Amino acid sequence: MTGPRFTDLVASLPASVPFVGPETQERARGRPFRARLGANESLFGPSPRAVAAMQEAARETWKYGDSQNHDLRAALAADLGVAPENVMVGEGIDGLLGYLVRMLVGPGDTVVTSAGAYPTFNYHVVGFGGFLQMVPFAGDHEDPDALIARARAVGAKLVYLSNPDNPMGSWHPAERVQQMIEAVPDGTLMILDEAYIEFAPGGTAPPIDPDDPRVIRFRTFSKAHGLAGARVGYAIGAAPLIAAFDRVRNHFGMCRISQAGALASLSDPAWLAEVKAQVAAARDRIASIARENGLTPLPSAANFVTVDCGADGDFARAVLAELARRDVFVRMPGVAPLDRCIRVSAGPEDHLAVLAEELPAALAAARG
Amino acid sequence: MTGPRFTDLVASLPASVPFVGPETQERARGRPFRARLGANESLFGPSPRAVAAMQEAARETWKYGDSQNHDLRAALAADLGVAPENVMVGEGIDGLLGYLVRMLVGPGDTVVTSAGAYPTFNYHVVGFGGFLQMVPFAGDHEDPDALIARARAVGAKLVYLSNPDNPMGSWHPAERVQQMIEAVPDGTLMILDEAYIEFAPGGTAPPIDPDDPRVIRFRTFSKAHGLAGARVGYAIGAAPLIAAFDRVRNHFGMCRISQAGALASLSDPAWLAEVKAQVAAARDRIASIARENGLTPLPSAANFVTVDCGADGDFARAVLAELARRDVFVRMPGVAPLDRCIRVSAGPEDHLAVLAEELPAALAAARG
Repeated sequence: MTGPRFTDLVASLPASVPFVGPETQERARGRPFRARLGANESLFGPSPRAVAAMQEAARETWKYGDSQNHDLRAALAADLGVAPENVMVGEGIDGLLGYLVRMLVGPGDTVVTSAGAYPTFNYHVVGFGGFLQMVPFAGDHEDPDALIARARAVGAKLVYLSNPDNPMGSWHPAERVQQMIEAVPDGTLMILDEAYIEFAPGGTAPPIDPDDPRVIRFRTFSKAHGLAGARVGYAIGAAPLIAAFDRVRNHFGMCRISQAGALASLSDPAWLAEVKAQVAAARDRIASIARENGLTPLPSAANFVTVDCGADGDFARAVLAELARRDVFVRMPGVAPLDRCIRVSAGPEDHLAVLAEELPAALAAARG
Repeated sequence: MTGPRFTDLVASLPASVPFVGPETQERARGRPFRARLGANESLFGPSPRAVAAMQEAARETWKYGDSQNHDLRAALAADLGVAPENVMVGEGIDGLLGYLVRMLVGPGDTVVTSAGAYPTFNYHVVGFGGFLQMVPFAGDHEDPDALIARARAVGAKLVYLSNPDNPMGSWHPAERVQQMIEAVPDGTLMILDEAYIEFAPGGTAPPIDPDDPRVIRFRTFSKAHGLAGARVGYAIGAAPLIAAFDRVRNHFGMCRISQAGALASLSDPAWLAEVKAQVAAARDRIASIARENGLTPLPSAANFVTVDCGADGDFARAVLAELARRDVFVRMPGVAPLDRCIRVSAGPEDHLAVLAEELPAALAAARG
């Protein structure tokens, strides 16, 4: 008997996953982490209003969620100054990136991103048979000019930029990003991943022109809103592109509780402001801890600080492993020369204190 | 400027959606339904334990869910008497069907199902370029022999059977389904959709042979467990097939609250027994209402009763519209001759009383 007849594409895909989750690591280790600082989650938690709304909605979970995400789209559109037709809500940016890649990328199509940028995007591109072209970072920044030049040279269907950047925490000012949008080649769509935009200085996000067909932007409730486990992201783009998601998406895929939580979170800007302040303070604290240990914190416009360990990838990987052995969960970039760094998420003092306590020994062990 | 360069396949897809949700209809109507009896949701609600677990988990929603669904898989495997490697958890059966179709079906591949069976499955098949072959129902039952014969004749990659069936509520005994599994042609994978299995008489589900590569089964927390809005389904199958989901799925796609709710619901079999008793009573009540109005309720092994309106599809559609006008939300099969029926979900007496109150006038209006 033959097994299932996978498509040639799926048969060729590796079984690897973009990220190993902290719970998976905890099971392998046999004990929990004391400091959960690796997944860029918001350890400051969701808005109490969002928690209350989700607790209330729990009783109504027998109902499917609204397949149109009507109320959340309307609220987002009002906040952004666009029409609901310019906003698509989906199962996190990860889910929406999957849909977008499926819409545009088939076997042989080319997609341009930066070497070391978001692995889950790459996972989707490869998963739909796309060919990834990687452009190096320039000075720990994604390189808009190089991305555009490569996209033009290869006739890319998609070109990806995150601003602020993950995993380096660097950012470009709005003018530079707008120049990139203006330079997008005909036939290429630019993905502007703004998952971390709430943490960035004013003047980092270009103004939203909802009718600009050259760019689609992604934002999320997973970071500043503290709702990573609720899986709510959204795309902002030209209405015809946004409407096309309806051809491929899982129409009843959104959790009803998540819809309620995201909507309530939007109504609590004071909480968001508080989280941003706490993240800014935590970035300073992480930077201090790094400096006290002779390491170099990179400037960050996100809810994490990427720390240059001062040597190569092998050394940073050793630091990561030694931190994990000491119950500190952090992650690191996957590609040289970015992988000389570790990436530490912002968190409250009890988690950062564990980092401060364990980093010296971890460094010593990695050096020894 | 050209627009986004969709793949040829996606460019060819219709913008239509498998189902129009009740909230969408309520917005169009300008007022809510008084009886929500159309989506086969469990109006009896989730287990109080599940509600409590979700309310507790709401505070932890800043964390991504466990990407391996470890605890839920382990609990399901223990319940089912299989290994965790035989169980994949995903974003509802809808989400898992999408992944499975993507794994096996590409342009030109053939898939066999019944005319009038689950539209969302068809949506996925068409969405990945598959060619649907439809076999008619036989006596309001899906027809295993005809499905197998067609699958064999066309070399289908997938053949779909739901047992109990939606939208008719009919079912086959386990022996008949097992005969179908035994007859699956080499190179075809059978999908056994058991979304409604908890409501069926004993002896409806064939024993689970987790190593049988011919069949993959789907079950859900959306129906008997009352967690439709939490989006938790699971697949049971041979380990190599289950492992292949990791090549395409959205690894961090599950909501953390939903994982907690499903796990808690599994620990409350008394609630499930109570819901099954309430559903059985509600089926009797719907059947009585139908008979009192001169209609014919069909036997049902699900949480709904399909009611033969005694004429053609136009008449049943008129009844549906007249019920909606009277604030009663029900649905109906989409294909003749099944579409002589309307489909009424089980619910508590306050909802069914609205149906009883409004059905006579709706029928009169449809006849007039």
